[in-house]
Amino acid sequence: MPTQDAVLHAKAIEIGKLAVRATTAAKTGHPTSALSLAHLTTVLMYRVMRWDPARPDDPDADRLVLSEGHAVPILYAACADLGVMFSPADGPRRLTVDDLDGLRAIDSPLDGHPNPRAGFAFFDAATGSLGQGLSIAAGLGAAARLDGSERRIYCLIGDGESREGQIWEAMDFIADQGLRNVVAIFNCNSLGQSDFVSSAQSPEALAAKALAFGWHVVTIDGHAPGEIQAALATPADRPLCVIARTVKGWGVPSLGGMGHHGSAVKQDQQTEVIAALDHTARALGADTVSADAARDIHPPRRRRAPDTATRTPDGFTDALAGNRKVQASVDEGALSPRRGFGLALHALGAANPAVVSLDGDVKNSTYAQDFADAYPDRYFEGRIAEQNMVSAAVGLAAAGKIPFVSSFGKFLVRAYDQIELAMIGGANIKLVGTHIGVTIAADGPSQMALADVAFMRAYAHARDYRGGPAMVVLTPSDAPSAYALTLSMAAHDGACYLRAVRGDLPILYTAEDRFPFGGHKLLRNAGIGAGGIVLVACGYMVHSCLAAAEALEARGIAVSLVDAYALPMETGPVLQLAREQEGGIILTVEDSYTGGIGSELADAAARARAAPRVHSMNVSRIPKSGRSPDDLLAYVNLSVDDIVRTAASLVQEG
Amino acid sequence: MPTQDAVLHAKAIEIGKLAVRATTAAKTGHPTSALSLAHLTTVLMYRVMRWDPARPDDPDADRLVLSEGHAVPILYAACADLGVMFSPADGPRRLTVDDLDGLRAIDSPLDGHPNPRAGFAFFDAATGSLGQGLSIAAGLGAAARLDGSERRIYCLIGDGESREGQIWEAMDFIADQGLRNVVAIFNCNSLGQSDFVSSAQSPEALAAKALAFGWHVVTIDGHAPGEIQAALATPADRPLCVIARTVKGWGVPSLGGMGHHGSAVKQDQQTEVIAALDHTARALGADTVSADAARDIHPPRRRRAPDTATRTPDGFTDALAGNRKVQASVDEGALSPRRGFGLALHALGAANPAVVSLDGDVKNSTYAQDFADAYPDRYFEGRIAEQNMVSAAVGLAAAGKIPFVSSFGKFLVRAYDQIELAMIGGANIKLVGTHIGVTIAADGPSQMALADVAFMRAYAHARDYRGGPAMVVLTPSDAPSAYALTLSMAAHDGACYLRAVRGDLPILYTAEDRFPFGGHKLLRNAGIGAGGIVLVACGYMVHSCLAAAEALEARGIAVSLVDAYALPMETGPVLQLAREQEGGIILTVEDSYTGGIGSELADAAARARAAPRVHSMNVSRIPKSGRSPDDLLAYVNLSVDDIVRTAASLVQEG
Repeated sequence: MPTQDAVLHAKAIEIGKLAVRATTAAKTGHPTSALSLAHLTTVLMYRVMRWDPARPDDPDADRLVLSEGHAVPILYAACADLGVMFSPADGPRRLTVDDLDGLRAIDSPLDGHPNPRAGFAFFDAATGSLGQGLSIAAGLGAAARLDGSERRIYCLIGDGESREGQIWEAMDFIADQGLRNVVAIFNCNSLGQSDFVSSAQSPEALAAKALAFGWHVVTIDGHAPGEIQAALATPADRPLCVIARTVKGWGVPSLGGMGHHGSAVKQDQQTEVIAALDHTARALGADTVSADAARDIHPPRRRRAPDTATRTPDGFTDALAGNRKVQASVDEGALSPRRGFGLALHALGAANPAVVSLDGDVKNSTYAQDFADAYPDRYFEGRIAEQNMVSAAVGLAAAGKIPFVSSFGKFLVRAYDQIELAMIGGANIKLVGTHIGVTIAADGPSQMALADVAFMRAYAHARDYRGGPAMVVLTPSDAPSAYALTLSMAAHDGACYLRAVRGDLPILYTAEDRFPFGGHKLLRNAGIGAGGIVLVACGYMVHSCLAAAEALEARGIAVSLVDAYALPMETGPVLQLAREQEGGIILTVEDSYTGGIGSELADAAARARAAPRVHSMNVSRIPKSGRSPDDLLAYVNLSVDDIVRTAASLVQEG
Repeated sequence: MPTQDAVLHAKAIEIGKLAVRATTAAKTGHPTSALSLAHLTTVLMYRVMRWDPARPDDPDADRLVLSEGHAVPILYAACADLGVMFSPADGPRRLTVDDLDGLRAIDSPLDGHPNPRAGFAFFDAATGSLGQGLSIAAGLGAAARLDGSERRIYCLIGDGESREGQIWEAMDFIADQGLRNVVAIFNCNSLGQSDFVSSAQSPEALAAKALAFGWHVVTIDGHAPGEIQAALATPADRPLCVIARTVKGWGVPSLGGMGHHGSAVKQDQQTEVIAALDHTARALGADTVSADAARDIHPPRRRRAPDTATRTPDGFTDALAGNRKVQASVDEGALSPRRGFGLALHALGAANPAVVSLDGDVKNSTYAQDFADAYPDRYFEGRIAEQNMVSAAVGLAAAGKIPFVSSFGKFLVRAYDQIELAMIGGANIKLVGTHIGVTIAADGPSQMALADVAFMRAYAHARDYRGGPAMVVLTPSDAPSAYALTLSMAAHDGACYLRAVRGDLPILYTAEDRFPFGGHKLLRNAGIGAGGIVLVACGYMVHSCLAAAEALEARGIAVSLVDAYALPMETGPVLQLAREQEGGIILTVEDSYTGGIGSELADAAARARAAPRVHSMNVSRIPKSGRSPDDLLAYVNLSVDDIVRTAASLVQEG
């Protein structure tokens, strides 16, 4: 009888060889990182995880999140050996060893870094930009607990990437939430890309840190199968952290040490590398045993199907009922868009058990508070750690939840890298940024979201795997539209970003108005005529434009006014509005930096024949504090007077 | 004789009252956070720091970085009491107590959060988006060590904000660098905005973490002057971390507990609050002592003036000398723009002792390696922690260094919030993002910078305090232009972002060519004629367009080709090029998402009369891995054939 260690060594070496071959075939990849994970991968995927290779996305199955995404060839190798289902262009089938030769090819789902949307459902989310995996695992773990699932989430983290602050945000979050179904495994191979890993990320240092962060810590030899199995079975009343000492390029002396990161073994050296692994197998007594016995995979534990019954959420009018203070504000004709969001989130909570909320210690400002109070088990306080919050939402979304992530729009910038990865992985997340634009005034520019539109619009024009925009950007101009758009976000399959003004704004719409994505609202129509102007704005500036329109009409200038609440925008009808006015001009007005609806219409107009001219007013200097919205709008040349003056001079120039 | 404690209590209460009054006058602000820092501020600014209120930006003076920027009224109060020099619109003078009434007003330098560019040189950098201060302090500390200055850098950090991963990136960085001139002071008042601070950020937890991160930790009562002084004088062979237990709303029982974050005391309650502080003073025996004796400020220790002699950096040709491998590549006609950057950075190192470099474990990919090898004392390995790296660069810039921060463009997205704060604070930082666009191919979308242009262009059109663009965006199409632009970045006062293609690109320019910001290069000129097309591209796509131009000319279509290496761009000449061709059309070609040179020209064309049409080709779907640039360019419809087909059909449509 071979020992279990010998069997698992044999399997680790077998998949290690496959990982080397795949990267050599691709002429690109990270074989040495892969080899450092050979045993951890083997023990997890062949022994410890409860899952089914025929159904890698089984909602009850244990999950493996590879935070250090570049090491993915070792997982592909195991998946090929195990015949995991994947989805190439010609339809779902089981992965084979031959498929590994397609690594990183344009027509292969075996992308350079894990991505379910490339056709590889074994993964829950895209990783590859480092330090995000543990937060994703946290989201998966939180969803499992909500669903009463016993699934466990294993996360492999590189020692180098554990320098990323987000890892420690996730360590805090998991400890805070008491998510004992998440296991963090640090792969300490001590070699980074350009240098040795810092002593601050040594196994000893990581162990001390994890302990200080409230985890149960076990340090092991990451190439000793028995130690790995024992560590993963450690009973603990705190989340379990395994510190695994490993060797980059394990089993192949010529690949050891610095200088081998991210380099595929050359074709003519492959035989030598394989021979070295064979030699290692002999040294471990793993050459004469069959690796077949390594496979001992238990199926997922079935949970009772969770309650997923949904109903139509309450409308805006019903949502007001019982909230006297808000109703009073509405009765006076004004309410903040952020309050519209908060009311809608609360209504969604009642209507759909899949809706969850995350907020970063500003729930009393974003009005996620009502949801948090009503559905505490579905509310996750992210504290002041936006990166973890967004990636945790990605994990929750991967488990079928509909996560709303709210914070000040400015603070979500902190997580733009995580948001990009979310979109790459096609995560169905809903972002809500409040306090957008300059009108928050007093707090100053460090709290103002101003470049958010430009960034998000880039993704509004990139199709994701669904064929639709990778991001839908929504800027409501009053509370009812914020309410309606929040409900639409939940109903939409895909990432959305709601930009919610802080201040109370006059109510423009009724609870019955509809706000389809891509659409706009025509608030004034100058009709067919001559020499008019079409003002196009969103959010706060719609109200400035309404005031400007009054002043312009008083001067005899015909004004159409468009509330352009959505990006991407169907620009045709707006261009047509201006065309119907002989010499009609479009003036866009935004209290953000360039790159929003101004560029949306300018791009369309510049492409078109016989297009109207498009002028843009936006924030073109870095703001400062001021005591009122008007102070700020004047400071950045966006006062009502500025709009009137600009519009009038454009019309006069003709 | 009053005790020193009583004197310092009296002063803490005096500035506490001023902070309350200022926020009440402004009707906005964070008086309770301010009160929690009353004693720490007093002891630091009146006793411990070596500085000169008449010259707060003295390069030898100790510095105070307020990471939790919202607590700034307590610092303004101390500054007013001490008569610190500041710069209102009517010229520099000493701050007075009356000036505090201007807090957060549009015409006051007393912004809602610290910002030197609002006119308050006591601060080195803008803070307010949380978790960034300690990294800025690290940069200041690193600069001080380089300069042989004995200045110390004190950083006040909120307990809530210490949830931000960046704080722990900074803790690692400072320990790694052995920066014992940086002192981290955690203000543990246990109350966040929307909830109690997590137990993960309790004084005990923070102390355990700081210890695990390699710091010397002292825990004190943050309202006991003697304890504060003793703690700050602790001799330690590791960086010093002070954990201060404090009370939010200290001295005013009615402002204690949750529910008072970020709310100014109302006018009619101010008397009561002041009375409560008087009562506290009595209880502490601080009511009968004069606070005047609190002031005991020692001047900065003078260092020997550091060597600041600069010379003209070597040109591209000289930079190649002695680098046989690179010279061979140039001789064959191609070199990567990232290599052009690396050569220039190395040359700058020799020419200017103020130039420093930071890189995030990819220096062998960005080619910051040459600088790191040649000038190890001026190279700061940021490890895999981009947020800390950027904010540390802000600190270095504040101390007069010219920091180049390099990483993959995609990974700099991690630090967009920090970059925004850098621009708000007017930091003279130089960002270099390599591996931009889809042509890195094999590694896949998690490594591709694609929305970077859209984000950065928003700032390219926002003026900073200098009156110029808050960000200059540069995308060279070959190594000599990358070299020249890198030198220009160092010479420019203001933030810049260089986008450097990874792959070798044919050399288009000579070492003598000049690349002024705002300019472009006309690589082909169809001349005055009819029915031609103007291709406008940058970086890799310039070469695709060169190939497309050949094919189009072969079909009899006249082509002008513009290398638009800079944003903002002087668009007039490019529009004029197209105008000179009857029915001339502009086609922009970018391997990034929308929002770059396409929008730059569309915005300009849409504004103008008789403008040419502008069509844009860019990445409009989320990419995946592929094995070659051509695979990827075809996948996103940006192959040379795609360009030729699009251009030809535009010309044929007319």
